[in-house]
Amino acid sequence: MQTITPVILCGGSGTRLWPRSRAVKPKPFLPLVGDYTLFEETLRRASDRALFAAPVIVTGRAHLPHVEEQLSFAPDATVIVEPAAKNTAAAIALAALRLPADQVMLVCPSDHYIGRPTAFVEAAQTAARLARGGWLVAFGIAATAPETGFGYIRRGDAIGVDSAESGGFQVDRFVEKPDLERAMQFLAEGTYAWNGGIFAFRAGDFLKELGAHRPAILAAVTEAVAKGVAEGHRFHPDAAAFASTESDSIDYAVMEKTTRSAVVPADMAWSDIGNWHALHDARPQDDLGNTIVGRAELIDCREVMVETDGPRVSVIGLEGVIVVVDGDEILVTSTAGVQKVGKLHGAAHQ
Amino acid sequence: MQTITPVILCGGSGTRLWPRSRAVKPKPFLPLVGDYTLFEETLRRASDRALFAAPVIVTGRAHLPHVEEQLSFAPDATVIVEPAAKNTAAAIALAALRLPADQVMLVCPSDHYIGRPTAFVEAAQTAARLARGGWLVAFGIAATAPETGFGYIRRGDAIGVDSAESGGFQVDRFVEKPDLERAMQFLAEGTYAWNGGIFAFRAGDFLKELGAHRPAILAAVTEAVAKGVAEGHRFHPDAAAFASTESDSIDYAVMEKTTRSAVVPADMAWSDIGNWHALHDARPQDDLGNTIVGRAELIDCREVMVETDGPRVSVIGLEGVIVVVDGDEILVTSTAGVQKVGKLHGAAHQ
Repeated sequence: MQTITPVILCGGSGTRLWPRSRAVKPKPFLPLVGDYTLFEETLRRASDRALFAAPVIVTGRAHLPHVEEQLSFAPDATVIVEPAAKNTAAAIALAALRLPADQVMLVCPSDHYIGRPTAFVEAAQTAARLARGGWLVAFGIAATAPETGFGYIRRGDAIGVDSAESGGFQVDRFVEKPDLERAMQFLAEGTYAWNGGIFAFRAGDFLKELGAHRPAILAAVTEAVAKGVAEGHRFHPDAAAFASTESDSIDYAVMEKTTRSAVVPADMAWSDIGNWHALHDARPQDDLGNTIVGRAELIDCREVMVETDGPRVSVIGLEGVIVVVDGDEILVTSTAGVQKVGKLHGAAHQ
Repeated sequence: MQTITPVILCGGSGTRLWPRSRAVKPKPFLPLVGDYTLFEETLRRASDRALFAAPVIVTGRAHLPHVEEQLSFAPDATVIVEPAAKNTAAAIALAALRLPADQVMLVCPSDHYIGRPTAFVEAAQTAARLARGGWLVAFGIAATAPETGFGYIRRGDAIGVDSAESGGFQVDRFVEKPDLERAMQFLAEGTYAWNGGIFAFRAGDFLKELGAHRPAILAAVTEAVAKGVAEGHRFHPDAAAFASTESDSIDYAVMEKTTRSAVVPADMAWSDIGNWHALHDARPQDDLGNTIVGRAELIDCREVMVETDGPRVSVIGLEGVIVVVDGDEILVTSTAGVQKVGKLHGAAHQ
């Protein structure tokens, strides 16, 4: 049986989960839901070696120590160390160029939460079948709310394989982050799904499409890999060559351009944990909708989230409030206020 | 000119300003408003030695170190060290028995805030004039809200002295803490003031009334003082004798019983700082009603209070919320929730 190679992208740091997520310890490497970090859970979901090959992790030098500390679910992983951050098109090209052309890659962000891992594995297998038929497949995350922070994918005709339903659909179109009104229309229409940044394709198909639509990126990354240096499980692309690569996302560079894009529906309790409120929603809640991590006491509270790394937090008479304690920083915000966490001086100047 | 002897009561600890006020460092000894502690401000208000004699401080052994550290506004003070806490009637009797019978005492709690100290001094002088005429005088604090947490004093006829207005009134009656409806009636009627626990009388008059209404308390305290030991500026009443004293408040034991009770109106921006919301109100606020002590950043906040002894507190999108950080304890409460601070496990088991 052919396996699927997970390609795990560990980039960026972000400020939306400040003060817990900081430059020194970014979001993928924190145990935000349950005992394992989001990165570890990403590896764990794809740890069945009957289905998945050893993963390829693409990350920067800053995150390398965290990555290498958290490989217990994938001790066989290889790590491509990006000399610079050049967005997802180049990062995925690095991995594709290190794999056989007919190997199916499953590109996964490392900082998302998936509540139903079996649904993920099922969708991955469906996507891999389509990828082996030459499709470039995006996961279409079942939309459960009119989110304005995500891109959407509208599905077109069902794709048949060998006169049977494949489980996938041609992509009618990719849609940028909509305003609330359009997001509500999308949700009502029922043919739109969230673009969660999870993709499957054969390495060769991706590179062929990248070459067709963004030949300069393919050329620069090819040179960076050709001049790169392997060091144990690590691979170091050539820094000078990679530095000249244009930054672009896989969405812009390839998925929205190719005529072979497909979408596989995935209903897997997904969350990008994009802010503290999303994390609250992903955690198990008590009868009053409260979630607590660390020492806390709540009186007359509803929908309150407390996360503390030490001091005891006592909350009285509040609804829809989030309290996060991390060392010398304390955040207290309304549910709506989580959108402005990045504007805080502490978050912006970490 | 005859002077007034301030008698400063430093008892109790209380839990309503937990976690800042704790058993180890109670409310009077904290700089809650401005640079000085409430205890220091109490001494400072009565520091004009042309009007006020050296104060007598009545406190327990636990608070003694705090008292003696904070005497910069009254280095001439004497301290009576209570062997046990026996409420205000006995505490005031201790001081009265150590003073000449014709000396006017001004009994003051040490944990209240007074925004207009000159009004306090004026009321003290008015009260002292009445006390010298044989009245037992209570300050009647101008009521500004239908508070249910205070006792009230209803004034009766004006008291004339030498055919002139004395500025005082006979007490029509003392009223226990009312419910909200009655408190609103009191406020509307205009003849009620709050009982702030500030009293003036000659030492001998107080002792005579105490002997008339609670002779057992007078006898026990008299014995405790007779057998007491002076040690520099400290006086230690006899522990065994004082232990047998009944606990009672001056209000029950004397003020509500005597026919010579008077009330002097005092409009002096008074607050008992009885909870965190009261403290917020006593502090200077910005245009949006926020108050900050320590490092904090507020975005989209109104009527938010932050007090932190170290960590930076960032607050987003909240109204009427109080955040207090004290070492290993963090309190986050609504304005209304401050009433339940004492119910917190941390506050109840400190």
